[in-house]
Amino acid sequence: MQSRNVAAINHESGNSDCLVTFQPTGRRVEVETGTTLLEAGRRAGLLLSAACGGVGVCGKCCVEILSGDLFPTEHEEREFLSSKGYPPRARLACEARVASSVVVSIPVGSFIVGQRLQVDAQDLSIECDPLVESHVMKLAAHSLGDCRSSYARVSDALASCTGEIDWTMRLGVSRQLAPIIQDDCTVSVYTRGTEIIGFASPGRTPVGLAVDVGCTKIAAYLLKLDTGNQLAAAAVPNPQIPYGEDLITRLVYADRSRSHAKTLASVVGQTIESLAKNLCQDAKVELTEIADVCVVGNTAMMHLLLQLPVTQLLRAPFVAALDCGIDVSAGELDWPFAPGANVHVLPSIGGFVGADHVAMILARIDGTNKTTIGIDIGTNTEIVLRNPKRQRFLTTSVPSGPVFEGGHISDGMRAASGAIDRVFIADAELCYATIDAADPVGICGSGVLDVVAALLRLDVIDLRGHMQRRHPRVRSGKCGLEYLVVPAAETGHGRDIVLTQQDITQIQLAKAAICAGIETLMDSEGIKPLDVEQVIVAGAFGSYLDLKSAIDIGMLPRFPNAQYLQVGNAAGAGAKMCLVSRSARERARIIAKAATRIELKKCAGFDGAMARATRFPKFQHSNS
Amino acid sequence: MQSRNVAAINHESGNSDCLVTFQPTGRRVEVETGTTLLEAGRRAGLLLSAACGGVGVCGKCCVEILSGDLFPTEHEEREFLSSKGYPPRARLACEARVASSVVVSIPVGSFIVGQRLQVDAQDLSIECDPLVESHVMKLAAHSLGDCRSSYARVSDALASCTGEIDWTMRLGVSRQLAPIIQDDCTVSVYTRGTEIIGFASPGRTPVGLAVDVGCTKIAAYLLKLDTGNQLAAAAVPNPQIPYGEDLITRLVYADRSRSHAKTLASVVGQTIESLAKNLCQDAKVELTEIADVCVVGNTAMMHLLLQLPVTQLLRAPFVAALDCGIDVSAGELDWPFAPGANVHVLPSIGGFVGADHVAMILARIDGTNKTTIGIDIGTNTEIVLRNPKRQRFLTTSVPSGPVFEGGHISDGMRAASGAIDRVFIADAELCYATIDAADPVGICGSGVLDVVAALLRLDVIDLRGHMQRRHPRVRSGKCGLEYLVVPAAETGHGRDIVLTQQDITQIQLAKAAICAGIETLMDSEGIKPLDVEQVIVAGAFGSYLDLKSAIDIGMLPRFPNAQYLQVGNAAGAGAKMCLVSRSARERARIIAKAATRIELKKCAGFDGAMARATRFPKFQHSNS
Repeated sequence: MQSRNVAAINHESGNSDCLVTFQPTGRRVEVETGTTLLEAGRRAGLLLSAACGGVGVCGKCCVEILSGDLFPTEHEEREFLSSKGYPPRARLACEARVASSVVVSIPVGSFIVGQRLQVDAQDLSIECDPLVESHVMKLAAHSLGDCRSSYARVSDALASCTGEIDWTMRLGVSRQLAPIIQDDCTVSVYTRGTEIIGFASPGRTPVGLAVDVGCTKIAAYLLKLDTGNQLAAAAVPNPQIPYGEDLITRLVYADRSRSHAKTLASVVGQTIESLAKNLCQDAKVELTEIADVCVVGNTAMMHLLLQLPVTQLLRAPFVAALDCGIDVSAGELDWPFAPGANVHVLPSIGGFVGADHVAMILARIDGTNKTTIGIDIGTNTEIVLRNPKRQRFLTTSVPSGPVFEGGHISDGMRAASGAIDRVFIADAELCYATIDAADPVGICGSGVLDVVAALLRLDVIDLRGHMQRRHPRVRSGKCGLEYLVVPAAETGHGRDIVLTQQDITQIQLAKAAICAGIETLMDSEGIKPLDVEQVIVAGAFGSYLDLKSAIDIGMLPRFPNAQYLQVGNAAGAGAKMCLVSRSARERARIIAKAATRIELKKCAGFDGAMARATRFPKFQHSNS
Repeated sequence: MQSRNVAAINHESGNSDCLVTFQPTGRRVEVETGTTLLEAGRRAGLLLSAACGGVGVCGKCCVEILSGDLFPTEHEEREFLSSKGYPPRARLACEARVASSVVVSIPVGSFIVGQRLQVDAQDLSIECDPLVESHVMKLAAHSLGDCRSSYARVSDALASCTGEIDWTMRLGVSRQLAPIIQDDCTVSVYTRGTEIIGFASPGRTPVGLAVDVGCTKIAAYLLKLDTGNQLAAAAVPNPQIPYGEDLITRLVYADRSRSHAKTLASVVGQTIESLAKNLCQDAKVELTEIADVCVVGNTAMMHLLLQLPVTQLLRAPFVAALDCGIDVSAGELDWPFAPGANVHVLPSIGGFVGADHVAMILARIDGTNKTTIGIDIGTNTEIVLRNPKRQRFLTTSVPSGPVFEGGHISDGMRAASGAIDRVFIADAELCYATIDAADPVGICGSGVLDVVAALLRLDVIDLRGHMQRRHPRVRSGKCGLEYLVVPAAETGHGRDIVLTQQDITQIQLAKAAICAGIETLMDSEGIKPLDVEQVIVAGAFGSYLDLKSAIDIGMLPRFPNAQYLQVGNAAGAGAKMCLVSRSARERARIIAKAATRIELKKCAGFDGAMARATRFPKFQHSNS
């Protein structure tokens, strides 16, 4: 887990007249009266969880006021807190504004943990209806008076439990048949439909594993199948990164030879197995109690994991080999789970719009009666438009490039230690925070977004993106104008950290692609900006970007009637839903079929929208 | 393939007045007028195929008369031959009796080939209704105008062929999806139910493999699934023999460690794979065109092949882990057939009464309206009684020991080169034939049976099995009395070949167990000897034993109204039926369920029957 601190410049003079002390860390910061505790926490480097983007709906940033005065609580916040059963002194940090010096206690749950490897898919609100069931039964021992086969003993006992008489099983399961029959033993038999898939000690219930294979991280969740309770969750970097930072490089690598493809599949497979091992250890269950697995990921990740052919993914029209869902036996992927366990890979929509997008739609968009735009930003950004008046989901994928992962930016870097990941303006000056509070060595995606928004706000760049030569921190560099973000004296590597005019152009292209993609989908569906009621921003980058910055630079359009929600790992949430619910799995199948993929290149309006969106929008002062 | 010649003593003097010349070998023999050509062929060492035991029903011993006179043809024989479309000069060697010197041509098909590794399961008379179907379809290439996934292309094409829209597949199949789509290609898609299981060039049709895993041999048959035509067949010795001659030794070996069990499984698995390769080569099909596999074998063989637990098979009450049929993916057994191919292992009845017995019942007994006894002789002999008035099949297994495989007999040996495998009396003297016409080195199972029958006939032994000291070839040996079968001067190893009093006792016990088993089943069902209409003798040993000898020594009871049929590898025939017919497979399931296994030890009458059957029956002169 990484912790993050505000490093470098701390503007605590001027109007700052309230001292905010955060417990249990004891970190202090002086802020102006009226500042939210969320913002105060940010400035103190204690980034509080705020999955909803600080709009008071997720409750993730809940804190407790130990002393001091705050501006009065709004009615909605009081309602929300009491509905969740929070204590009277609790407040939402995003809503609570300081009126004096205060001391605040931050519960562990309100810290952002493991930010860059986010696993905090929100809680499931789904009725469990898992494919796998468990039956506890007593089996008579083999004896001269009862010489039924081991199979007959189990299937007869199951028949008297369930009424079903014909039970099948895989070879691996049948190999366990005789050994489980001890003297008059009681066992838990796990079944899926009319198939016996494994055995466990009595009293054990089957667990399942939901996995989200992302390009940069792999997140895994261990759930009880009967209740949906999450027993453990963890995430690790995708071990394919050394084989290529981006998808295409990895696909090209895999396409070169079968052994390459095998390597990419096995590094991911082994990582998932070791994640599962750790989760099981944490949850005190056996690996063989994992009786079902649900996997999501983008099209490329799924092709690489399953060793599907990728040649056709690398040339126009970039088609998937497989877009329907598929059930693979866990044994086929060498995972030592219950011998009859299946791995269900969710269906995908087509091209690069993959199973993770279907899962995200399932978890966050399906069933809404609001006109909703869903977006998952990465090298490829998937966008979905849900018009509740129609059955279909309109989706597309835009090549937004690696800018938001720190690529193609002079001083860009991944979200790792020392990356500037948050930039804000205090007293008309740029302030920044770095990951691990380390001396800055580069700027990661969310930082890039913030810098550009700040430069716009400070009029360092104009609406066309042109840098204003007259600003004291703008200078001529090797490749034209550049803005000095951090001078060499303050950096970890002793070199200036800059943002160049070329960087800004890259960012303009990337954000324009996303914005134009959204607008083109809206045009296709006849949806106007005023119609949009909800914008769902999913995924790790989507969770940590500053929504205001994203809107300020025009990456996300400003919809006057929309609520913007950062929902965390929605793909993971969808995977979890499909793990514990047959109807969710069926729903995912329907979503994948009902989704219409728009080829932006074929849309007449796209190029124009792209050109317009390359400009930055006029800066609008918010009142926060 | 082995050929067999009469070696040693050739009794061609005395009443022999007809010279029979066999073409194309040119072999000659003088026989008495009235001798059948089958018998003449036997004496000349040209063993003709006679699957029905020489009773004129199988047509396997058909020969062509080139010159000379025979006794007139019986009406039935003429009818039979003309119904089969044989030429006018054709005769059944088992029916045709010589009236003068004759010249006879033996078609290749009438030779016994590969006797000891018999694969000649008789032709199928079954309507083909295979699980696997083939669909030829044209697939549009990936193009900018059609960017459906490879899967969608195939499933859409299948949908327009079949009306079915939801197609699933295994991972291995999905890996072939993209590569098969070439420029506007036509392909054969193999399906099973709503599952896609493989692809082939257009015009190819799926083939299937039926396998009979016996304790001593493994037979495999390659069939076209749509027509049931047999493309090739072969058999090889079971490679587990070095790990134990008998089942129990192998089971004990496998039970000792997982690696032992793995070894026994993999030697058989590899042998089946290499058999399949050879058959495919012969039939000019690809291994990946094998789209379905059906396997039968006794309980122990199936447990070893599938690496099922065997501990419980080694102690009372000797139960199987698994007795239901099971479908295993070919990949799980490492067989490189069509990627979605299944291996169907037929259900078994219980204990050691295995899938091979079910297959034998299916192929030769199910559906008969005659009161039938079926028998498959080996170390364990399985017996089934079919009373057409009742639904059930009464089965049992008797431990007949290794006598019929040449075990536990002083000069006993397996049916290999130099084994005396046929003994007959000519001019009151013992004559014998050896495998490969080699100098004799021992006696194999069928030879043992014949020797005992001959000694009974010659009154060398009495009805209690006691050797008559006064006979010139009876002498005192190391372990009591013994009969000199072949003196050292004529043998291949320069030692006498004898049959001892102890050997005879062993044979008495073995044949008594079989006979008592039959009688006990009949008692259980209330069937009298006069009721029995049919006796089916299956399996390799069952095909090569001399039925008359078997009846003479009382191994098989003499049923006055019964037809005795040696049906060859009936288990293999059952496996072939299940390969090409869904209803046969369903029927096998029903047979396994409807079969009632009798525990002989629990039957009050068994011990008495055993004691009675230990005696030899009174010799009855036959008129042949």
